[in-house]
Amino acid sequence: MSCRSIIAVTCACLLIGAWSIESLASHPRLLLTSDEVELIRTKLEHSPSFEQAIQRTKLNVDAYFKKPPDVPWPVDSGGGYSHEQHKQNGIKIREAGVLYQLTGESQYAEHAKSLLLAYAAIYPELDEHPQKKEQTPGRLFWQSLNESVWLVYAIQGYDAIYDFLSETERNQIETDLLRFMADFLSEGSPQTFDRMHNHGTWAVAAVGMTGYVLGDNDYVEKALYGLKRDGSAGFLRQLNSLISPDGYYTEGPYYQRYALMPVVVFARSIQANNPELEIFRFRDGLIVKAIYACLDLAYAGLFFPINDAIKEKGTSTVELRYGVAIAYALTSDARLLSVASSQGLVELTGDGFRTALDIDRGKALPFDKRSVLFRDGSDGSQGALAVLRNGTGPKHQALVLKATAQGMGHGHFDKLTWLFYDNGSEIVTDYGAARFLNIEPKNGGRYLPENTTWAKQSIAHNTLVVDETSHFEGNLEKAETVHPQMLYFHSGKNVHVVAAKIDQAYEDIAFNRTILLLDGVFTPGVLIVDILNVSSPTTHQYDLPLHFKGHIIDANPTLDGEMRELIPLGSTNGYQHLWLRARANTSQNGIFSLTWLADDRFYTYSSLADSPMDVLVTELGANDPHLNLRREQAVVLRAKGASNHTFVSTLEVHGEYNATEEFTLASEGSIVSITHHELFGQDLIAFELKDGTRRSLALSNNPDKDCKHLIVTDDQKFDWNGYYGLFDEKGRIQE
Amino acid sequence: MSCRSIIAVTCACLLIGAWSIESLASHPRLLLTSDEVELIRTKLEHSPSFEQAIQRTKLNVDAYFKKPPDVPWPVDSGGGYSHEQHKQNGIKIREAGVLYQLTGESQYAEHAKSLLLAYAAIYPELDEHPQKKEQTPGRLFWQSLNESVWLVYAIQGYDAIYDFLSETERNQIETDLLRFMADFLSEGSPQTFDRMHNHGTWAVAAVGMTGYVLGDNDYVEKALYGLKRDGSAGFLRQLNSLISPDGYYTEGPYYQRYALMPVVVFARSIQANNPELEIFRFRDGLIVKAIYACLDLAYAGLFFPINDAIKEKGTSTVELRYGVAIAYALTSDARLLSVASSQGLVELTGDGFRTALDIDRGKALPFDKRSVLFRDGSDGSQGALAVLRNGTGPKHQALVLKATAQGMGHGHFDKLTWLFYDNGSEIVTDYGAARFLNIEPKNGGRYLPENTTWAKQSIAHNTLVVDETSHFEGNLEKAETVHPQMLYFHSGKNVHVVAAKIDQAYEDIAFNRTILLLDGVFTPGVLIVDILNVSSPTTHQYDLPLHFKGHIIDANPTLDGEMRELIPLGSTNGYQHLWLRARANTSQNGIFSLTWLADDRFYTYSSLADSPMDVLVTELGANDPHLNLRREQAVVLRAKGASNHTFVSTLEVHGEYNATEEFTLASEGSIVSITHHELFGQDLIAFELKDGTRRSLALSNNPDKDCKHLIVTDDQKFDWNGYYGLFDEKGRIQE
Repeated sequence: MSCRSIIAVTCACLLIGAWSIESLASHPRLLLTSDEVELIRTKLEHSPSFEQAIQRTKLNVDAYFKKPPDVPWPVDSGGGYSHEQHKQNGIKIREAGVLYQLTGESQYAEHAKSLLLAYAAIYPELDEHPQKKEQTPGRLFWQSLNESVWLVYAIQGYDAIYDFLSETERNQIETDLLRFMADFLSEGSPQTFDRMHNHGTWAVAAVGMTGYVLGDNDYVEKALYGLKRDGSAGFLRQLNSLISPDGYYTEGPYYQRYALMPVVVFARSIQANNPELEIFRFRDGLIVKAIYACLDLAYAGLFFPINDAIKEKGTSTVELRYGVAIAYALTSDARLLSVASSQGLVELTGDGFRTALDIDRGKALPFDKRSVLFRDGSDGSQGALAVLRNGTGPKHQALVLKATAQGMGHGHFDKLTWLFYDNGSEIVTDYGAARFLNIEPKNGGRYLPENTTWAKQSIAHNTLVVDETSHFEGNLEKAETVHPQMLYFHSGKNVHVVAAKIDQAYEDIAFNRTILLLDGVFTPGVLIVDILNVSSPTTHQYDLPLHFKGHIIDANPTLDGEMRELIPLGSTNGYQHLWLRARANTSQNGIFSLTWLADDRFYTYSSLADSPMDVLVTELGANDPHLNLRREQAVVLRAKGASNHTFVSTLEVHGEYNATEEFTLASEGSIVSITHHELFGQDLIAFELKDGTRRSLALSNNPDKDCKHLIVTDDQKFDWNGYYGLFDEKGRIQE
Repeated sequence: MSCRSIIAVTCACLLIGAWSIESLASHPRLLLTSDEVELIRTKLEHSPSFEQAIQRTKLNVDAYFKKPPDVPWPVDSGGGYSHEQHKQNGIKIREAGVLYQLTGESQYAEHAKSLLLAYAAIYPELDEHPQKKEQTPGRLFWQSLNESVWLVYAIQGYDAIYDFLSETERNQIETDLLRFMADFLSEGSPQTFDRMHNHGTWAVAAVGMTGYVLGDNDYVEKALYGLKRDGSAGFLRQLNSLISPDGYYTEGPYYQRYALMPVVVFARSIQANNPELEIFRFRDGLIVKAIYACLDLAYAGLFFPINDAIKEKGTSTVELRYGVAIAYALTSDARLLSVASSQGLVELTGDGFRTALDIDRGKALPFDKRSVLFRDGSDGSQGALAVLRNGTGPKHQALVLKATAQGMGHGHFDKLTWLFYDNGSEIVTDYGAARFLNIEPKNGGRYLPENTTWAKQSIAHNTLVVDETSHFEGNLEKAETVHPQMLYFHSGKNVHVVAAKIDQAYEDIAFNRTILLLDGVFTPGVLIVDILNVSSPTTHQYDLPLHFKGHIIDANPTLDGEMRELIPLGSTNGYQHLWLRARANTSQNGIFSLTWLADDRFYTYSSLADSPMDVLVTELGANDPHLNLRREQAVVLRAKGASNHTFVSTLEVHGEYNATEEFTLASEGSIVSITHHELFGQDLIAFELKDGTRRSLALSNNPDKDCKHLIVTDDQKFDWNGYYGLFDEKGRIQE
């Protein structure tokens, strides 16, 4: 079965040409050009929010340069004093330079100059960093990545004060610092520069932007086409290989954000200097798609935390501030203005000004997010991340099914896991990364040991775990060879359906999953139906965990809470971190249901015991000597000694708990029983509701819309075409 | 030592007379009078927000009356169907009646009439409720309290449609319902009506308001002066006995809110009908003080959850909507308008209109909360609740020291416990009540068994626990006989100090506590210093728990996390509910320090080991078979085998974790050592900071401002007057 035909790709409207072609003769010429400076100076009074951004930057820069330049000898690794000081200096060179352009006040040019000269004075003396990291050492920093980031900022500052400097000063800064560094990052670091990896993108951006400012085409060509200048590496090849046709970056949204920064700032510099390359039209407007993808990969402003991800990160970060402004200047999509407005800060670039001006003109429209299937892989053939949205506004529902490729070393072993958001919050959750970014006492701010022992393991996610081992036995090489296959994706008004399968996560075991998000179709509100089929020639223990936010209100059968002792659920593959808090048993064909309260809503998770099922309620925190893990909960459904097994589960959103007005509505779910029949590869699932009525779901597992299907039971006839049919007792429910 | 002289009482500015004296001749005549209806009709167009409130009420009422009146035979207890239906019917009688007055549309009068007649038809047939509760059964409801509440609402609806009804209809409703019910609630329930308790206040309000509407002075007199009409009971006696001179209600803010409702609605009705009583001038404006007290007993809109309290409750509840509007009409304090505005809804009363009109006129001023000492007890002599505030706006700091009387059956055993709020959130927490209000599967929405076994126990609070037993051995009668004594209260610009003591919480054991909240005095930011002295002739185990919100980042000495087994910390008095998660030991004169991250700020708690100290990190949830308890954490400092012991602790607010901008500032606290010396009843405590400097705190424990004190050490001379002195190495720090 091919699923090419059923993949929905939505693409942002793309209008090239909102800016005019620049002359290379003048400075500055990157994200802020001389024409744009002119434009800003003329129209600044019409944009109070851009004026405010200038004032805020002035305050910061004034405070920073009260002390003389502090350019310490490099000694510290990430988070240490010299590391942080160099990072800040790079940013401040840009800010001071840009302020000089926008205000004409020469002290800002002096500030930038003083730092650049101080760096020029020491840079040639530096050797590899004493704390050098693995194969990619820097000189100012422990890894060359930070050196590239530094140069991306500093070159913008140099560009901005170019005309202010004497020729002697320019020579000194270019020879002893900028060329020295650009050479080091390109010819001196081929293993990074020519690599298809976001570190490579940072390096080519730094070198290419330096090339533009210095008028050195050699740097630009290497940056665009690789050290050999033949297209076997460089920016264009990176764009081809790192980003999928739908704008998805394989590591997931958290790293997509980071990888996006050099892409957008370099692309914008290319557009200003080599407009004939039409970089923003490259691969059907790939870069703008990647910017939109970041916005569509978030809920309540925070990214879906799949793979290694810091959960506090979202669409207000600096990368998206640059990205959204650039996308707005390209597309004039007024919905982007409301995103930019919520970001709080506007960057001091030409596009930042265009964005601020139109926000201040009141042009912003709401940005309601879409259901999108993001194919993974450079050609879009390596599975996908499916995002279903129901409703609009900050309290809408989002459901994510992860059927992507592994996503390199930051990928987690969680094929076909899912997440659910409602009412402005996470409900069915992903742990993200076990890391306290930049917090020194927590392993120097680096990934914690528990990132490997817990966060990456399958049991840390909402997916099938067989015999207490992780997918691909937690082996990255194995995981990178295969990917899931999308089976179906549909997002209508009140019915949203996604399905995918994977055969190689475990030897001899295949599983597939179909998830429906229904609104007012089976129950009065939102109902999720989740069917996970697993098949194997041999018997296994199948665990299906659900990690969720909220306080448990009720369970049926009753949970027995552990009274006087907690012990870990297992000994390895993440199980060693779970305390077993409570348990229940469900006999065959019974259902287990669990109701919890999160904020002011109730959620009831019900699951059919296809075979007798143990229910285990767990809490994170065992074998965690330094209390590194957050204390989160899960319920694990366990089927033992099964070969083929189907988990049929529902999650119902219902009721309201209103403490202010002192009332509670519908604190109980409405599903009282579930039955499941498989007939010749088709599934028929019936739900009996509290009011005595019945709803049914039929799955053909065949996406062909024209193919008709029929199941006849003693009670009812079910006929439908396509992948699924939804029925009440009177017949098929029309959507 | 008398502390009368050092008690600060702030009192709201009180202006009587914002409304004119009404004639009793016309209806309506309670919280909405005929003159006010006239006023609203004339000026409605000037208040869009009042118009909106009318429209919203219309929508609700229209939907409610689409179905014919549903007046079920009373069968259910609280939370059940008939209970909730009667509750709603009472409210809807009022809403429909008020809408009739405000819109003139007769269908609303018909709605109210239909319900009132339906109740008149069944009420005389009713006996005591089948689910009657203890000694106070109702007829429509399981307890007479709900019956009183029902009548408070319904009588307002009857008042509003009085002129619409025929005389026959009026006779039927008055005879078979209103008089029947008022007689039942007064002469028929003397044990409630004449009781000094908030149930009694609801009863007198219902009966008194009925008296005004029916023009029956007999009801009014009983309501004001008790069944004997001699002042030995009734509303005025209740006001004298239930509310302290500072407007504090002994059960705490959660129940103060509930108790306030009948007070304010009845008082407002008295003012309209017996203005000569000057009820709002009674006891120096006590009722308005009690309304302001509710506002001052909250942080981020939620009440301080001392004693039995649902933590979601705050200043937007219906009781405060009535209260704030009434207080605004009396005082014209424009700061109340911003509170009313944040409440979201305005009540359809005359005062609600005055408030809405002035909000719409843009008159609102910010309501910045004050430091207040709320004395407890009817004459203010039974201890106090101290509220210290530092800074302004939603992220200001609030510190609460609870040195109140027991507060009747809903009181917790937590003398001298404290709470701390910062950055818009709870930081040092109180569990509140173990109860899921109105949530049927959780013990019918009633208090849970864990409310007694955990929430009321001393270990559930931030106070001293001796020998693993609770204060007063958890015995209410014992607890009600005594109360703490305030020693000192001072709130300046950057220095706030409170102190209290209690000698009878345990036999032969006295303890006192002094807490300072300093801003920029010892450290760059906010620092709390907490000195708890305990003395006894015999040796004991002293535990000092701190319940806090946030993720543990660092500890010194290092905590050893329990790896493979969790067991309860103890077997009774709340200890049986605590899992022991980690532990550390601190040798004598060492300090234990614990840093955690909450939102974007760091908090470091440091404690001097006056004698060798065990440190226990706990998590709630042991012996909790139904998972009723929230999974919250605490650190318990334990000194064993001590007779006299001083816990000197600090809590430092520091640094910033900024995920969006990817930086972390000051993730470590600045206090590296603490020393404590007691000399002739005076305490000298020195703090050594990371930068090598020293700060000192001297306590005379004598509030007399004129009394001079001197301590001379080898290093320095400390001279000060009054309760405390703050010193750096150069001498006394000037505030």
